[in-house]
Amino acid sequence: MKLRQLFAALVFGFTASLAQAEIPWTFQPLPAEPPIPADNPQTDAKITLGKQLFFDPRLSITGTHSCNSCHNLAAGGEDGRAQPVGVYGRKGRRSTLTIWNAAYHTIHNWDGSARTLEEQNQGHLLDPNIMGMPDARQLVDRFSSIPAYRAEFKTVFGKEGVSLENIARALASFERTLITHNSAFDRFLAGDKRAISTQAQHGFEDFIEVGCASCHFWVNLAGPQPGLAMQQGEGFYELFPNHPGTDYESRYHLADDIGRYDFSQVKTDIRMWRVPSLRNIEITAPYFHNGSVKTLAEAVQVMAKAQLKYELSQQQVDDIVAYLHTLTGRFPTITVPRLPETSNRTAVAGHDD
Amino acid sequence: MKLRQLFAALVFGFTASLAQAEIPWTFQPLPAEPPIPADNPQTDAKITLGKQLFFDPRLSITGTHSCNSCHNLAAGGEDGRAQPVGVYGRKGRRSTLTIWNAAYHTIHNWDGSARTLEEQNQGHLLDPNIMGMPDARQLVDRFSSIPAYRAEFKTVFGKEGVSLENIARALASFERTLITHNSAFDRFLAGDKRAISTQAQHGFEDFIEVGCASCHFWVNLAGPQPGLAMQQGEGFYELFPNHPGTDYESRYHLADDIGRYDFSQVKTDIRMWRVPSLRNIEITAPYFHNGSVKTLAEAVQVMAKAQLKYELSQQQVDDIVAYLHTLTGRFPTITVPRLPETSNRTAVAGHDD
Repeated sequence: MKLRQLFAALVFGFTASLAQAEIPWTFQPLPAEPPIPADNPQTDAKITLGKQLFFDPRLSITGTHSCNSCHNLAAGGEDGRAQPVGVYGRKGRRSTLTIWNAAYHTIHNWDGSARTLEEQNQGHLLDPNIMGMPDARQLVDRFSSIPAYRAEFKTVFGKEGVSLENIARALASFERTLITHNSAFDRFLAGDKRAISTQAQHGFEDFIEVGCASCHFWVNLAGPQPGLAMQQGEGFYELFPNHPGTDYESRYHLADDIGRYDFSQVKTDIRMWRVPSLRNIEITAPYFHNGSVKTLAEAVQVMAKAQLKYELSQQQVDDIVAYLHTLTGRFPTITVPRLPETSNRTAVAGHDD
Repeated sequence: MKLRQLFAALVFGFTASLAQAEIPWTFQPLPAEPPIPADNPQTDAKITLGKQLFFDPRLSITGTHSCNSCHNLAAGGEDGRAQPVGVYGRKGRRSTLTIWNAAYHTIHNWDGSARTLEEQNQGHLLDPNIMGMPDARQLVDRFSSIPAYRAEFKTVFGKEGVSLENIARALASFERTLITHNSAFDRFLAGDKRAISTQAQHGFEDFIEVGCASCHFWVNLAGPQPGLAMQQGEGFYELFPNHPGTDYESRYHLADDIGRYDFSQVKTDIRMWRVPSLRNIEITAPYFHNGSVKTLAEAVQVMAKAQLKYELSQQQVDDIVAYLHTLTGRFPTITVPRLPETSNRTAVAGHDD
């Protein structure tokens, strides 16, 4: 038994080949419902409102960008780009993370700078490179000027009505419905051994043995999460690159961005990054925080080398990629909402030229 | 009888108040189906493909803009801005026209520079300020590299497969389903006299008497259209401003843009503009080719003065606005399509940073 296998056996109680062994308990199918915070319960009216807001470009100062502009629900919940383009053609700092299954994360953004979807939404709305709203006041004034929105906010949030916090809450409630369960891997975990190919099963074995599964585990393949058995505080971070000085590091500028440190100013956070989910990873290229790696096969090799100091064979790469393909879930059908209209006038007046 | 009423009586056979008279035959409910060109018949597969393309930001060079980015189907089929924002933060030249019911137009774009939806689509794809595709080749290469699209194009268009023309054709087929019939005014025209308020009926009378109906008539309130009884050649243009030198002209820079002339280089086309539809006009502010007028009431006054040399009373403005509100139709339910994915890689590679 190789050392790596021994490690896997210790961590995951995994010794024989997958066909005979139990699947490690650290892998579980994605539940149909994500954790719902006590201070923002789901209601139908709130989800409806959140969906309208998600598709509403008036959330951006210029009226040009909705959440869906970058978190494209017709696709992988992101934009297929290295860096997003926000208002005024400005670039976002890091590659867009998918909104699909984001509801299962302990932490949001690459640097964990938001602890909840609500926080993440607020941050993006006020980010000058994304939605560009200069302050909560302008956002609230604009949405309060749209009668049907005003009425909806009152129904959902009572007297408090339209506020930055309530916009973020409604958005988060809708985002908690953006779940892609029932992937082939989920069906495999649930007992259907034929749900994934033999090659994908080999890939899953490699994924565990090589060490990918040390971070990419649990229901969202992104480490532990809150409200569930494996809670581990405020989030799950890893050093990246873990093994400095690889060719990949310079080729893809992996160490240029200082990661969570820039946000926290805590020295131990230098180049610490949240562990991203691998669900739907097949359709969310390009990869990494800077979107520098264009293909999934290359991303797998970079991770093995820079994180685990492991040189994968071509066969292993192919197998792991085949496994990763099984993480693409079933996407819910979403109807395009009708947005509350401002009769006779534009709500972005003053920011529309 | 005022001269204007006499004119209306001559043109529309309209003498008494609306309550007693027949509604002028030049007003007809919007048919459920628009004219379909013989060389681009509707098929379910083509409409499905066109819908995917309509929502696909990969049609833009940067992967940031879909047709829906500016022609927002969650709203009035446009962007609520004076000028659209295309790729690289570039501004489009003129205010976005709604895509709803565009299928009924004889001519497209403010200057009539496209005679069909197919032509319009091609133009927008290659416009450096809109989708920014440098040439057909890059567009075709990109979409040919997406296996599911390649297969769909083959099914729909046979051997010809992916081409600029076929992308434009599929888009046009989907756009021909974007119809908002059954507005209150349509129900009124169909015989339900209670479908619109008394104020709106007064507004409709004013609309005819004042002269708005001289251009804004027929099913799309945009003048005659092809394939129907009132065909009048290649399109329907009017001089704007018709009465030069008004205060409005300078305040809203109405005469700065030279209109169709810039496209046709024909002297008689100086400041000639296509007559835009008034359907859903309530929700498509700001108004005019330069989006300079922020409210519908102001737009009505500008039109009366600059086109008809007529000073409307406040009551007339209110009544006409009430009438224009009855032109907001019923919007079809549209599901967000699933876009064909590029497994493992991004299709916008090379244009994504």
